[in-house]
Amino acid sequence: MLYDFLNVDKSADKLLYEQLYDNIKQAIGRGMLKKGDKLPSIRGLSQDLGLSRTTVETAYDQLCSEGFLTNCPKRGFFVEAEDFETLGELLLPEKNNGDFSLVKWDFSTTGVDPSCTDLKFWQRCIKDVLDMPHIISSYGEPQGEYELRAALCEYSRRVRGVKASPEMIVIGAGTQTLLSILLGLCGDHGYNAAMEVGFFPQGEQIFSDFRWNITPLRADKDGIILDENIESRMLFINSSGSIRGCAPIPINKRNKIISWANHHDSMIIEDDFNGELRFSSKPVPALQGMCPSRVVYIGSFSKLLLPSVRISYMVLPPELAQRFVKRMQNYNQTSSKTEQLALARYIACGRLDRQLRRLRKAYGEKAAVMYNAVRAEFPSDTIVEIIETALCVRIKLKTDTPLEILRKRAEESGCRLGKCREKNGLKYFYLSFAGIPADVIPKAAAALSEALLKDRSE
Amino acid sequence: MLYDFLNVDKSADKLLYEQLYDNIKQAIGRGMLKKGDKLPSIRGLSQDLGLSRTTVETAYDQLCSEGFLTNCPKRGFFVEAEDFETLGELLLPEKNNGDFSLVKWDFSTTGVDPSCTDLKFWQRCIKDVLDMPHIISSYGEPQGEYELRAALCEYSRRVRGVKASPEMIVIGAGTQTLLSILLGLCGDHGYNAAMEVGFFPQGEQIFSDFRWNITPLRADKDGIILDENIESRMLFINSSGSIRGCAPIPINKRNKIISWANHHDSMIIEDDFNGELRFSSKPVPALQGMCPSRVVYIGSFSKLLLPSVRISYMVLPPELAQRFVKRMQNYNQTSSKTEQLALARYIACGRLDRQLRRLRKAYGEKAAVMYNAVRAEFPSDTIVEIIETALCVRIKLKTDTPLEILRKRAEESGCRLGKCREKNGLKYFYLSFAGIPADVIPKAAAALSEALLKDRSE
Repeated sequence: MLYDFLNVDKSADKLLYEQLYDNIKQAIGRGMLKKGDKLPSIRGLSQDLGLSRTTVETAYDQLCSEGFLTNCPKRGFFVEAEDFETLGELLLPEKNNGDFSLVKWDFSTTGVDPSCTDLKFWQRCIKDVLDMPHIISSYGEPQGEYELRAALCEYSRRVRGVKASPEMIVIGAGTQTLLSILLGLCGDHGYNAAMEVGFFPQGEQIFSDFRWNITPLRADKDGIILDENIESRMLFINSSGSIRGCAPIPINKRNKIISWANHHDSMIIEDDFNGELRFSSKPVPALQGMCPSRVVYIGSFSKLLLPSVRISYMVLPPELAQRFVKRMQNYNQTSSKTEQLALARYIACGRLDRQLRRLRKAYGEKAAVMYNAVRAEFPSDTIVEIIETALCVRIKLKTDTPLEILRKRAEESGCRLGKCREKNGLKYFYLSFAGIPADVIPKAAAALSEALLKDRSE
Repeated sequence: MLYDFLNVDKSADKLLYEQLYDNIKQAIGRGMLKKGDKLPSIRGLSQDLGLSRTTVETAYDQLCSEGFLTNCPKRGFFVEAEDFETLGELLLPEKNNGDFSLVKWDFSTTGVDPSCTDLKFWQRCIKDVLDMPHIISSYGEPQGEYELRAALCEYSRRVRGVKASPEMIVIGAGTQTLLSILLGLCGDHGYNAAMEVGFFPQGEQIFSDFRWNITPLRADKDGIILDENIESRMLFINSSGSIRGCAPIPINKRNKIISWANHHDSMIIEDDFNGELRFSSKPVPALQGMCPSRVVYIGSFSKLLLPSVRISYMVLPPELAQRFVKRMQNYNQTSSKTEQLALARYIACGRLDRQLRRLRKAYGEKAAVMYNAVRAEFPSDTIVEIIETALCVRIKLKTDTPLEILRKRAEESGCRLGKCREKNGLKYFYLSFAGIPADVIPKAAAALSEALLKDRSE
C-alpha cells in the first residue's frame, strides 16, 4: 500500500514525531485513511521514511491516546476515528435499482447466445495480441488499428455490400461514440437531424447533448416516410429494420430516400445494427453501397461477437474522412487496442463468417421454438410475430392491466422483460430469445404467460 | 465465406441459371465481388443453394464467356471484371503520413516502459475474466462495472485523497469520452468553460464539438490565474501540473480556486492526468478531496498501466451523479467489460500500487539518466530541466533553424519527437524518457544532439 500523504521534512523546525502525528491526523481528516484501515508497522514505516523506530512509535502512541488509532496486539495499528468531514453530508445518488439476481429467464435484449461464439478462439486471439509487449504498451491509432480497418473493409463489402477503403473507416467504442465524432465533424452541416423517434434513445441522447434539433419522421411498413417539405441536412435511418423490428427498407423506398437526400443535399446516417443477422430471408445489402458519397455507414459487433466487446465502425464519405484525418490527432481512440487487433484476426481468418452462419442457424431454430412456445401458452386472441433482426418474438396482448403491474408480475416470476409499450389498447411485448437456451424456452414462455395472464384466468 | 447476395427464387418465372447469372453480375457491379475474388466451387454452390450442378455450371460458363469470371484449371472460378462503379471515382483521403518504421528512439510521449508493467499478471487477469462466458456474453453496466468502481473508490482515496462512493463514479474509454458525457449532463450550466488553452487539444476539441465557448486563462508558475472578472460556470484545471509540465498547484492557489468557484457558482473539472506519477517529491492530493460537491475528478491509467487499455473514470458530485443515473440507460458503456473487470482485479490485489512504486523508482532513475545524457550532449547555453509528471526532460535550445527543419532532421536520424514549440527566440523540446530503455538513452541523446545542432557545429 502507498502512503503518499506521509511526508516528513527532516530540515523543518518541527519535531519529526510531531510532523508524522500531524500527517496521519490530516490524512484521517481528509478521508485518505478510513476507519478500519491498517497502518504500516513501526519497523516498516521507520525504514520507508528513514526515521528511527522511536519516532514512529511516539507518533503512533500519541494518536492512540487521542483515539485516532487503535493498537490491536499482534495485528498492528488501525484507524479508529471516523473522517472529520464525511461523505454523509453529501447527498448521495440512490443505488441503482437493478437487482437482477432473481432473473431466471432473460427476455430483454441485452445478451447473445454464448454457445454460438467461438470463445476459445477469441481467447486465443486476445492472448496472441497480449503476447506482443510493444503493441500493448503503446497507444493505438486515433482512427483505429489499420489491420482491423482493412479486415472490416473486406468483411463489410462481402457481407453488406459496403464500399469502403481503410482510410474511410473510423473505429470507436459503440455507435454513440461514433455519432459524437460525426456530429463534431459536421457541426456546420445544420444542427438538425430527421429521424424516427422512440426507437433509439441512445442516439437521440447524443443529438440532444450536441444541441441538435430532431425532426421526427413518421413511418409505414416500408420504413420512414419522406416528403419534400421536410427540411433537414441529416437523415438518420436504420435500413435493415432491426431497431424498429420490421423488414428491411425495400429497394424502391431506398431509391426515394437517396433522391430525397440528393435534392436536399442531405447526409444519410445508416445505422446497420444487426443488419447481417437475418435468418429466414437473405439479408438486404446496405444502402451505403448505392451512394457512398452521401451515406455514413455504422456497423457494430455487439450481437455478432460479444456484447462486452466495445467495437463499432463507421464508413465516412471521402470528403468527411479527409476532414477527420485533418483533426485526427485531437481524438483519442476509444476501443481497446488489444480487442481491435484480436477482432482483426478473428475476421481475417474467417471465424466471423463462420459464426454468423452458425448464429443465423441457431437463431432461426430458436425463433421457431419461441414462436411455438408463446403461441401455445397464450390465448388465441394474442397476436404473435417473429421480429427477425431484433432477435425477438412480439406479442400483442389484450389486457386491461397496466404495463407497470404486468412488468412487476413478470419480474416476480423470474422473467426479465425488455421493451414493451401500449398501442391501440393492446400491450406489446418484445421477447428476445437471444439470451435463453432453446431447451429452456418452453418453460420460460409458460412462466411468462402465467404471470401476464393472472387476472384474465381468475 | 458468405454469399448473401446469391439469392435464387425457385418459384420465380425466370430460369434458375439466369437468376444466378444476374445475381453474380450485380454483385460484381455493386462491388461485393472484386477482381481476384474466388467463387465457391460448382459442387459447393449447388449444395448451398439446393440447385443442380448443371444450373451453376451454366451460369458460370456464361459469366466466363462474357469476361466477368475466369476459370483457372484446378484452382476454380475467379472474378475477372472490375467493378462497374469503382471507388476510384470518389476522392479518397490521403494516406496517413505516419510511417514510423524508421524510428529508433521515440522521444514522443506516446509510450510507457513495458518493463514496469506486470504483463504476465495482466494477461492472467484478462484470461480469468474471459473464462466466464456469462460475463463476456452480456453487456456491461452503462456506468461501468461495479467491481471496478468499488476498486477505484478505494484506490483514488488512498493514493489521491479523492472522496467518492462507487455510485459517484462513471467509467469511460478515455478523458474525451467522459468529457462528452459530462458536457451533455450539464448542458444547462452555461456553455462556457474557462481553461488554459494550448495544452490539451483533445479537450478543446470536445468543447468545440459541443459548441461551448472557451475563456482562455493565463498562468504563472503556480498554475492558472483567476480574477473576479472572469465569468464562467465551468473551470477546467490540471491540478497536478502534468499537462503543462509544471509543479502541482500549491495549496494557497488551490484555496483561491475553490473560493473563486464558490463565488461564481462554478463547476471545476479536475483532470488528474498522471497525478500520481511524481518521483522526486511526494504527490500532492487531488483538489477534489477539498470540495467534492463542486469538483468533477477525472483519472486515467494510460501512463500507469498500458496505453492500449482504454479505461478512465470520473467522480461526479452527488447531484450530477444523480442526474447521470436518471438518464444512464441512454448511454452505452465504452470501455471493454473484460478489461474493466481485469483492472478491478489488478487493483484489488495491490498490483497497481506495486506497479506505481516500481514506475516511480524506474522513472526517477531514467529522469536522471536522461538529464545527464542531454546535459552532456548539448552546449552549456542550452537550458535542461526535468518535467516530472510529464515524464520528460525539456530543453530550451538557442538556434535560428526553424522548428520544422529541426524536426525533420531529427526524424531522419531516427529520433521521433513529441511536443516542441518556440518562445522568446528559444526552441523548446519535450523529450519523453518513458518509452526509451535506460541503457539506450545516452546513445539516443547523442543522436538527437547531432541532428539538432548540425548547423551550429558547421
